[in-house]
Amino acid sequence: MAVELAPDPDVARLAERTAAFVRAVVIPVEERLGGVARTESVRAELQAEAKAAGVFVPHVGVEFGGHGLDMRGRAVVFEEAGYALLGPLALNIAAPDEGNMHLLEAIATDEQKARYLAPLAAGDVRSCFAMTEPAPGAGSDPAALATTAVSVPGGWRIDGRKWFITGAEGAAFAICMARTSGEPGHAGGATMFLVDADNPGMKIVRHIDTLDESLYGGHLELIFDGCVVPDDAVLGEVDQGFRYAQVRLGPARMTHCMRWLGIARRAQDIALARANEREVFGAKLADLGMVQAMIADNEIDIAASRGLILRACWELDAGRSAAQATSIAKTFTSEAVWRVVDRALQICGALGVSGDVLLGRFLREVRPFRIYDGPSETHRWSIARRATRRHAAAGAEVRP
Amino acid sequence: MAVELAPDPDVARLAERTAAFVRAVVIPVEERLGGVARTESVRAELQAEAKAAGVFVPHVGVEFGGHGLDMRGRAVVFEEAGYALLGPLALNIAAPDEGNMHLLEAIATDEQKARYLAPLAAGDVRSCFAMTEPAPGAGSDPAALATTAVSVPGGWRIDGRKWFITGAEGAAFAICMARTSGEPGHAGGATMFLVDADNPGMKIVRHIDTLDESLYGGHLELIFDGCVVPDDAVLGEVDQGFRYAQVRLGPARMTHCMRWLGIARRAQDIALARANEREVFGAKLADLGMVQAMIADNEIDIAASRGLILRACWELDAGRSAAQATSIAKTFTSEAVWRVVDRALQICGALGVSGDVLLGRFLREVRPFRIYDGPSETHRWSIARRATRRHAAAGAEVRP
Amino acid sequence: MAVELAPDPDVARLAERTAAFVRAVVIPVEERLGGVARTESVRAELQAEAKAAGVFVPHVGVEFGGHGLDMRGRAVVFEEAGYALLGPLALNIAAPDEGNMHLLEAIATDEQKARYLAPLAAGDVRSCFAMTEPAPGAGSDPAALATTAVSVPGGWRIDGRKWFITGAEGAAFAICMARTSGEPGHAGGATMFLVDADNPGMKIVRHIDTLDESLYGGHLELIFDGCVVPDDAVLGEVDQGFRYAQVRLGPARMTHCMRWLGIARRAQDIALARANEREVFGAKLADLGMVQAMIADNEIDIAASRGLILRACWELDAGRSAAQATSIAKTFTSEAVWRVVDRALQICGALGVSGDVLLGRFLREVRPFRIYDGPSETHRWSIARRATRRHAAAGAEVRP
Amino acid sequence: MAVELAPDPDVARLAERTAAFVRAVVIPVEERLGGVARTESVRAELQAEAKAAGVFVPHVGVEFGGHGLDMRGRAVVFEEAGYALLGPLALNIAAPDEGNMHLLEAIATDEQKARYLAPLAAGDVRSCFAMTEPAPGAGSDPAALATTAVSVPGGWRIDGRKWFITGAEGAAFAICMARTSGEPGHAGGATMFLVDADNPGMKIVRHIDTLDESLYGGHLELIFDGCVVPDDAVLGEVDQGFRYAQVRLGPARMTHCMRWLGIARRAQDIALARANEREVFGAKLADLGMVQAMIADNEIDIAASRGLILRACWELDAGRSAAQATSIAKTFTSEAVWRVVDRALQICGALGVSGDVLLGRFLREVRPFRIYDGPSETHRWSIARRATRRHAAAGAEVRP
Repeated sequence: MAVELAPDPDVARLAERTAAFVRAVVIPVEERLGGVARTESVRAELQAEAKAAGVFVPHVGVEFGGHGLDMRGRAVVFEEAGYALLGPLALNIAAPDEGNMHLLEAIATDEQKARYLAPLAAGDVRSCFAMTEPAPGAGSDPAALATTAVSVPGGWRIDGRKWFITGAEGAAFAICMARTSGEPGHAGGATMFLVDADNPGMKIVRHIDTLDESLYGGHLELIFDGCVVPDDAVLGEVDQGFRYAQVRLGPARMTHCMRWLGIARRAQDIALARANEREVFGAKLADLGMVQAMIADNEIDIAASRGLILRACWELDAGRSAAQATSIAKTFTSEAVWRVVDRALQICGALGVSGDVLLGRFLREVRPFRIYDGPSETHRWSIARRATRRHAAAGAEVRP
Repeated sequence: MAVELAPDPDVARLAERTAAFVRAVVIPVEERLGGVARTESVRAELQAEAKAAGVFVPHVGVEFGGHGLDMRGRAVVFEEAGYALLGPLALNIAAPDEGNMHLLEAIATDEQKARYLAPLAAGDVRSCFAMTEPAPGAGSDPAALATTAVSVPGGWRIDGRKWFITGAEGAAFAICMARTSGEPGHAGGATMFLVDADNPGMKIVRHIDTLDESLYGGHLELIFDGCVVPDDAVLGEVDQGFRYAQVRLGPARMTHCMRWLGIARRAQDIALARANEREVFGAKLADLGMVQAMIADNEIDIAASRGLILRACWELDAGRSAAQATSIAKTFTSEAVWRVVDRALQICGALGVSGDVLLGRFLREVRPFRIYDGPSETHRWSIARRATRRHAAAGAEVRP
Repeated sequence: MAVELAPDPDVARLAERTAAFVRAVVIPVEERLGGVARTESVRAELQAEAKAAGVFVPHVGVEFGGHGLDMRGRAVVFEEAGYALLGPLALNIAAPDEGNMHLLEAIATDEQKARYLAPLAAGDVRSCFAMTEPAPGAGSDPAALATTAVSVPGGWRIDGRKWFITGAEGAAFAICMARTSGEPGHAGGATMFLVDADNPGMKIVRHIDTLDESLYGGHLELIFDGCVVPDDAVLGEVDQGFRYAQVRLGPARMTHCMRWLGIARRAQDIALARANEREVFGAKLADLGMVQAMIADNEIDIAASRGLILRACWELDAGRSAAQATSIAKTFTSEAVWRVVDRALQICGALGVSGDVLLGRFLREVRPFRIYDGPSETHRWSIARRATRRHAAAGAEVRP
Repeated sequence: MAVELAPDPDVARLAERTAAFVRAVVIPVEERLGGVARTESVRAELQAEAKAAGVFVPHVGVEFGGHGLDMRGRAVVFEEAGYALLGPLALNIAAPDEGNMHLLEAIATDEQKARYLAPLAAGDVRSCFAMTEPAPGAGSDPAALATTAVSVPGGWRIDGRKWFITGAEGAAFAICMARTSGEPGHAGGATMFLVDADNPGMKIVRHIDTLDESLYGGHLELIFDGCVVPDDAVLGEVDQGFRYAQVRLGPARMTHCMRWLGIARRAQDIALARANEREVFGAKLADLGMVQAMIADNEIDIAASRGLILRACWELDAGRSAAQATSIAKTFTSEAVWRVVDRALQICGALGVSGDVLLGRFLREVRPFRIYDGPSETHRWSIARRATRRHAAAGAEVRP
């Protein structure tokens, strides 16, 4: 056993196929649409092509049509898929479906898998994950969860308000987090419920207009108003919702990073193409020191992000908590990707802010990632707290 | 004589009136429209209100309905107008009209002033400034000017392509920079021409889709194709265009800064309101150290920008070249404003990326300012070159 | 009345004389000594030269041999003095004597002025300001003041421990802050005392070895152990010490900034000289984009610092509290100066880290300024708190 | 085969032993000496202890007393050794000896190994690497090599000037780079020579006073003045010096990073200890948001550096060129380590700038690493150039 950074050959081949598919099939569609898919026909067409290319839902088990990639494998393949905004949609590995499949595969009953996971993995339906609430509910602080579920004969009644529920428009079902014990502010007592879209107690309040627009199905505000679900709608066990959330959120945080890292590479390639052909002041952009500094910083940011993601994935695959590693990787990558796109846009000048290239679109899409999945500040707080505790526990071997 | 930073009392009162006007009249319209005005009726209504409030076109002479503010006075008043995206449009001090008025007032003949400046200052018409060209023409490097004007009987024939011509849609006339002598790459031989919108030789190629959308009349691509103008369409003297461009660009660079500084303050106020009311983890946002750091950095960036703008304005009013001071102020302010809006958005979290507040809009609007009016890299190159020359000229008094 | 940034002609002439004096007299001594003066003979010689050049103690009143400069005047002159590490010592405007003179001139009795201020302003003696205490005493948080003074017949007895007392070695007297009422943690009840060096109750514990070494007389740890002083040793009024501290600290914060801004300019000049003469990869350093970026950022940092200092000085001269302005100026300048020296050193490469130029010395000297006079974090906390309160007080006119 | 980040168990055990040794043996010595060893007795004592602990020269082959660690193994062990400034000296893995051993093991003849490598690996002698020259010679640009070696009967005569030759004081021999063909400015024609210290043609000009002081034997300026060496003093083949330099420099760049990463961790631990015990404003430092942000950024910088170093080491072990990976790792790590130490010092406040903790010393030691081994600017230039070429070679698949 020794340190080894090369992916398994099967994974490497899948990544290459994915890269080729994205360039040949996805990017032309994306450029035509300006980066945002809004219709089922586009989704269906892209996913059919991905199936034909053998790159569809690579992260779920073979019994659900995938390749059973572990997190390290996803790191390599998802980055290639993320090279286009629409790549993840094409492969059916976009948020929130990708994370929901991961969660269902891990904790759903066989019946729930047949009913929810199978059609989801096939791309026949979409889903959403209803956790985040408007202030003062569950946002940066999940413990503030205010939506409640109370036991009623034969099931549960859910009441509460959710927002920024990605993909909710057109989703066949939601996984809803609700409090089944404890009070808002206490980190216990949440339960996950599978709620079908046709449940009359789950209603769309509005589409939230957001800076980013590329996640299919938008960000919605939902209300659960006397929403009754049967007992078998409980996902996993009652009161274990916060624990399951970690099952979903750690990996989901990383797959976000992988996909956005792909966009960062794309932005860099757009900038490199421009730098290699545009002349100004008698020199190629690529030969100007300040442009070179931006190009180099992009390379550094991309390489550092990749290393941190891989470390966190390796810890996750090894069954460790990986909380520190995923927080570090998410915080760094979300900020690095933002810097990379911003520099790429700057290199392209006026062209960069125009719709003639997709950099302005990318900038809009990556900005919220510094907030979604836990703002950088919340992650930094966690990272620092773990570091201080680690040091205190070590018996303060070094003292000033 | 001593250093004095308080504005003249008249200016201070005008600034207060402007601030009150923006809050009472402009912001409600802006919030209703999401920050972007797209119709003449909105423009007319806002400008009528500004006239009624006595805050219209403050920078032009009283004979044109203004208050004759010098650059230092503009620094104070324009910042207040810029507190809303639509404030400058309301006061008729938005780009490019504001800079065109400045230029016309400085170098136009009386006849040209009557014909072009008077209706422009009254808000009856709008204008554009056709200088920037797509690569490899005049962009970061004005000397690359490729559009030509050749003498023809009774006038001039202009041929060339321009892009990012702000406000061109619906403008009554353009001020067009064309080369009348020398070759592209040489910093000489440009002339400015007044071209009426109904000139059949000036044609709109397309609207350029851009990240920013709030400048009224958009950013257009134009073609001058055998565009013939009479001799009296020459603005100032033949072959003096690059010199006049400096007359316009130095001050225009500063008025951009003033307006965007207003938006930075607005973003900070939105963040402060949120920080003062939102609680998370049992504390107000405003009491969390990482939020305080962002708030403080915003205060610092705003104060530093204001100081640099004022310095450059004072130099301009004193008749100095001010090239170093305006480059420094533009570079710092454009980046500071971007940081301020970005931090404000981060403080507001998911709300910040939603359309419920205008921060996402502001972010889109200020990003291009690091490119428009000379990218930061071009300005840094100029700043460094002037510094090295200054040092070399001083006889290298300090040697390593 | 209008905004005016040019200094009074008398001030401008004094600044020019100071600049010439520093170059002709101080820098040769400084280069010989590596930036650190350690003997009375050097101090005496430099100060005699400064008197001869008519640039000595410019900030105190003419009755004490100075030019009575207000804060705006000091901003211009002290920056020139700070162009050499030993410049402030030569002019007798180094910390802590300069701030002590300022304080004594403002609040001492005529007798105290004759006894303490007059010889201090003449350079006959030196002084120190004994406020900072080791943890958990008065550091970032002045209210933690733990040193006590209790009334005894005919005077006061002071007990406590102080550290980082600059210039204490060889000082003729200390101004000591001690608590005369209230408990540590409460921001009230401090009194200032004049303590003669020969008082047996004031003892030197040790010299603190620090990263910086250029402040004459070092940083000492002192103990006040049953230190009895007479009633007329009280400076100002009993229990008003925290208020007086503000009289001293606001301006002292600014004069620190002015002096360090001078060093930043010196560092930039050293880098410019190097950039203008060193060739690498076939080009002058000054022609390489990444070097130009550093040079430009230095120019920007210097200009922005100067603007913020001037603003704070103008507020102080106008009799305003200026707390926000001095915190902003101190935070920005201390960090900007650090960046400037760091970039200058980087431009000079291996030469920059060698003793052949003084940049390594400068780097060591400016680093602690981000901690002395209130760490950046404490200032950011204050700045944010004032901003949030200002917003809350304004009635939250802008709401998200 | 799959991605695996855990080190080989043998390596892990050696790293643990090294960590324990550094804490038990090295740190007490280091704290006593303020981080700088200046005598042979200290060196001998530390190295004897390291031998006894079984952690000596881990990177050389077992036949020379080491553990034959590959680069990935060094990454883990050297980081632990670097946790103290004197750790690498103790293990005999400090620059430049460590890199010289690596080079000799790779290209020396058996006789050269017996004569030079064996005593070096045993710690019986020390060595230096004489490549860098003062301007306009070989610095950032190795091709500027100006020292010459010309063939004379029975050997070679070397003439030239070198500076920043680390460890030259007391070294038993130098490996000297000299030009044997081509002209300065051309990247060809260098040869490496083994020069014994008692060669009368190699003379010490001076010790260079530098910001850093912890590298044993200092940084010297040397002159080669008619320095004649025999034919068997040629290391490897004539005219292959630049190629061999790469053999040495890529790995040496990484081992520098590993060692400095250890110091970054140490600085962080010092800050954590302080943050866990110091109270201010009624809270522990570790509970203040701005301190937490610094702690978290340190964790992130350390983790990202480690990931980049490991990637480069894996490429080196795989026999790839690794030039891009080592440039990226060196640039990021040298800057990250600097930030970490700077933040740690800031967290400790006045204590941090005092000699009571070693942070000021660390700050001085790590600063030059952004210049030594190629300044960040040179690396960024290389990184950008490789990125642009890679893109151009790929057929510019993405075009703006």
